[in-house]
Amino acid sequence: MPTYNAPNRDFRFVINEMLELESYGNMPGFENATEDLINSILEEGGKFTSEVIAPLNQIGDLQGCTRHEDGSVTTPPGFKEAFDQYREAGWGTLTQPEELGGQGLPHVIGFALKEMMSSANQSFGMYPGLTNGAIEAIKAKGTPEQKEMYLPNMVSGQWTGTMNLTEPHCGTDLGMIRTKAEPQGDGSYRITGTKIFISAGEHDMAENIIHLVLAKTPGAPDSSKGISLFVVPKFLVNDDGSLGERNGVSCGSIEHKMGIHGNATCVLNYDDAIGWMVGEENKGLAAMFIMMNEARLGTGMQGYAQAEVAYQNAVAYALDRRQGRALTGPAEPDERADPIIVHPDVRRMLMDAKVFTEGSRAFCLWTALLADLSEKAPTEEEREKAHDMLSLVTPVIKGYSTDKGYETATNMQQVFGGHGYIEEWGMSQFVRDARIAQIYEGANGIQAMDLCGRKLGQKGGATIQAFFAMIDEEIAAAKENEALADIATRLEKALGEQKAATMWFMQNGMANPNNLGAGAHHYMHIMGIVILGFMWLKMAKVAAAKLAAGSDDKAFYEAKLVSARYYAERLLPDAGALRRKLEAGSEAMMALSEDAFATAA
Amino acid sequence: MPTYNAPNRDFRFVINEMLELESYGNMPGFENATEDLINSILEEGGKFTSEVIAPLNQIGDLQGCTRHEDGSVTTPPGFKEAFDQYREAGWGTLTQPEELGGQGLPHVIGFALKEMMSSANQSFGMYPGLTNGAIEAIKAKGTPEQKEMYLPNMVSGQWTGTMNLTEPHCGTDLGMIRTKAEPQGDGSYRITGTKIFISAGEHDMAENIIHLVLAKTPGAPDSSKGISLFVVPKFLVNDDGSLGERNGVSCGSIEHKMGIHGNATCVLNYDDAIGWMVGEENKGLAAMFIMMNEARLGTGMQGYAQAEVAYQNAVAYALDRRQGRALTGPAEPDERADPIIVHPDVRRMLMDAKVFTEGSRAFCLWTALLADLSEKAPTEEEREKAHDMLSLVTPVIKGYSTDKGYETATNMQQVFGGHGYIEEWGMSQFVRDARIAQIYEGANGIQAMDLCGRKLGQKGGATIQAFFAMIDEEIAAAKENEALADIATRLEKALGEQKAATMWFMQNGMANPNNLGAGAHHYMHIMGIVILGFMWLKMAKVAAAKLAAGSDDKAFYEAKLVSARYYAERLLPDAGALRRKLEAGSEAMMALSEDAFATAA
Repeated sequence: MPTYNAPNRDFRFVINEMLELESYGNMPGFENATEDLINSILEEGGKFTSEVIAPLNQIGDLQGCTRHEDGSVTTPPGFKEAFDQYREAGWGTLTQPEELGGQGLPHVIGFALKEMMSSANQSFGMYPGLTNGAIEAIKAKGTPEQKEMYLPNMVSGQWTGTMNLTEPHCGTDLGMIRTKAEPQGDGSYRITGTKIFISAGEHDMAENIIHLVLAKTPGAPDSSKGISLFVVPKFLVNDDGSLGERNGVSCGSIEHKMGIHGNATCVLNYDDAIGWMVGEENKGLAAMFIMMNEARLGTGMQGYAQAEVAYQNAVAYALDRRQGRALTGPAEPDERADPIIVHPDVRRMLMDAKVFTEGSRAFCLWTALLADLSEKAPTEEEREKAHDMLSLVTPVIKGYSTDKGYETATNMQQVFGGHGYIEEWGMSQFVRDARIAQIYEGANGIQAMDLCGRKLGQKGGATIQAFFAMIDEEIAAAKENEALADIATRLEKALGEQKAATMWFMQNGMANPNNLGAGAHHYMHIMGIVILGFMWLKMAKVAAAKLAAGSDDKAFYEAKLVSARYYAERLLPDAGALRRKLEAGSEAMMALSEDAFATAA
Repeated sequence: MPTYNAPNRDFRFVINEMLELESYGNMPGFENATEDLINSILEEGGKFTSEVIAPLNQIGDLQGCTRHEDGSVTTPPGFKEAFDQYREAGWGTLTQPEELGGQGLPHVIGFALKEMMSSANQSFGMYPGLTNGAIEAIKAKGTPEQKEMYLPNMVSGQWTGTMNLTEPHCGTDLGMIRTKAEPQGDGSYRITGTKIFISAGEHDMAENIIHLVLAKTPGAPDSSKGISLFVVPKFLVNDDGSLGERNGVSCGSIEHKMGIHGNATCVLNYDDAIGWMVGEENKGLAAMFIMMNEARLGTGMQGYAQAEVAYQNAVAYALDRRQGRALTGPAEPDERADPIIVHPDVRRMLMDAKVFTEGSRAFCLWTALLADLSEKAPTEEEREKAHDMLSLVTPVIKGYSTDKGYETATNMQQVFGGHGYIEEWGMSQFVRDARIAQIYEGANGIQAMDLCGRKLGQKGGATIQAFFAMIDEEIAAAKENEALADIATRLEKALGEQKAATMWFMQNGMANPNNLGAGAHHYMHIMGIVILGFMWLKMAKVAAAKLAAGSDDKAFYEAKLVSARYYAERLLPDAGALRRKLEAGSEAMMALSEDAFATAA
């Protein structure tokens, strides 16, 4: 059975050494986040996820969720008990505000725990993960009464939450939704319609489920400007907070999916269900984006979290499995064969995975710090700056990390040879589970268009220019340092490709928006490659400084420097090829008639 | 339910127009292969695979194979009946020699049918596919008696065959096998051991199964030079050809795999089973390579065959599904939304798939012609030249086509958005089935080493130089043609990257073989990219000539020209990035100690 170990040394490196979280002690909530506290949360979180959550991953895949005739759903064996432990330990409360029963700690710490949960058991992690999205929407748009009624129990994990967007005929194009909300004159609405692909839509892990549902009021505009958001609890909540009647929402079926079998992906039927509007009428899309942004960061994390656990198991296999001999002569002549980690092609896959997961972890925790800064930085200017940067990189985290995460999980499966294809070894599950993250919370093509169609032009292009300036500055400083100069020069070249691609978009995207659409995927990947290069340069800088200072943990920092070099030499070159593709424009891509795609007999 | 249509217009284009098969009428077997005959075989094959085989694909995935308590195995509903039809129609006999009951037709035609079988139902296609490998080994190495006893029934499909190589502790490193063969003094051997991952290892589709098994005779050298090949029939064959006693080989279990559920992947237990040596003692590896080479071409085909069927279904979905509006304004203003094929990112994925599958089809059928030429060309010189080229490109077909085939199937799943992740739509199966082709018949890392460690140096480098000269010549001619010049120039650049990478290997691979190992994967991909570019240039040449001649089928040839341009602009640039990675060498890749890969808490 595959195993999971929380990479706590690396978490400590990124949080304490690279981000220097203690240096933000002037921000609310950060004053408590001492290095000691962080380390002990990481340690406890590591134990919980590796010992309690991870062992349920494979059984979740094998047994999946069961819908009973009455519409109730049973989660895989052990899930309910593990969620009880999660709730009792207060894991869901880490970063929530104290007035809601939270601990008010930085997002950076919350993100670290989320990564662990995703690596250990993505299906399980989605139950609290979706709840977080729903919490954020109610926090931002709910009435004081709604906040009081729902949030404390959602924060504690007593209740969970869901996001109900998709319908059978509409996913991306939410203007087309048909679910109706009829006002009852008493402030409540009756909701009727069918929602599909609802993760954690029905289950036995919590006593109530708070559904957030997009629907249309009578006479609403027939577009995305006519959507409102509603809160629809599975059980109505009495004024004293106790649970009342069962509401008119039920699970019609559970989808048969490629992966994440442990999460109940439901068709939810709303039949005159009672709900209340959250936020303003016809402004549901804005509220939905609050949930979506939260979910997109979590989804990006799922991408590299699956790569991380797949990597850990591939390393163990590569050290254990013996086949053939090193090309340079037997590494272990007394044994019948060498462990396969001696083979360069196995190393290539492991190193690619190592630099991707460590680079992505740094990227994601750096982004979490932006989220903290956007809420808590001392000045409005700093908060705005952080918010803009967060907004710029969010589609890259979602799109790039999940594309590469799937690719990496696939490569880790490849390390196992034939055994990788056999379900018992668990590598297939990592690949199948990783696959969903490229699709949900806005398919990656949508992320690419969000990046190129909206975010590049954000603030008249000032955000992307600030992004370039930030990396230029890091490069200029690094070039002065012998240990970093080559890495910095290679990053400069890749960043140059991104700048050129940005310029090409400016010159060719306005006149013909298809040029933007045709290159958006490539641009998103260029930017992901550059950001991870930026992270590796930052990490290398810390490592070089520690080594220069004579650190005891020499092997760790030397490995960081080698990895940074590997990333620069072997991953950055893709940026140039992607730019060339992007600059080919949309002409050949859009030239064929629809008929030309059909297969002719 | 997903569907499959044989791309017969494209088969005819490649076979009749690009390869001009009729021009080889001077070779044995080719004189009968008129354009009319080819077209009618394609038509019948298309009907059989789309109407009989393809409809069994999804049920094969859902129900899989069942092992009963007595060790017998039942294939999915419909498989046995469909195989009866396959046998009765003589589909297995197309390219086999007439003296074995075959039709003696060119491999080119046989390969076209194999592609159809793989696209329609990969699991089903593997039953006759493995049989072919076994036939070739017996043909090449068997005694006249063995040939007479086994081959006619295997060719007709009365019996099927298997390849038994892998054991639990050894896959790639076959020197480590433990299965024993004890001589009985009467020319027979008793075989004892356990083989795993045996595709089509036990089933109910044929009355006998002819296992080819690698084993060691007493006192054989403890290396790959101590392996012999044995034929072990499931039922012993009496002198009169009737079936005798059940032999001591049985299915211990069926593996639970990520995909190809319709094929019974067995653990086979050999317990004093009676077998006979095929070929010379301790020369089993050479015989095995005969099976493997046949299988590697078939496996490469599986890669793009899954991409092809996934593409067909993605096109249908993209034309049907309506979400959002074209970036350039509504394409169908009267409808609620445009079909998603208007979106550049959907087009990108479809065009990438189209140029990959059509390019790979041309590559594979061109390779099949090399196989024909290597057997039947009039002079020894021509046969040798064809054989050398076939040998050079075989690992590229296997490794490159399957890597890109899996990636393409994944992208086609992406076109479906959330529905792609739901098993009912069938896209998940295409991805899961495609995955195995990167692993079996020598994992792709082994293919890359075969290419770079053996094939590049073949005949002192003369074969790769002939490869370069062949493409140079095509490029030089194309540059004279206005319609082809840009494509040719771009291909020249990519070929230049391959030449430079080859030179780099020559200069750096001898002193440190890890430099070869570290770049082998990248080299294999560069060469795959170049070969498909070469194929697109050839196809564009034919299309341009047909258009210049005023062909009636204008839209088809124009689409070929657009596709060739798209390939040149958007796929060739990867060669440059891959070369830069390759030239980074092995230093950073091999620098870390094994400990540095472990996850530190």
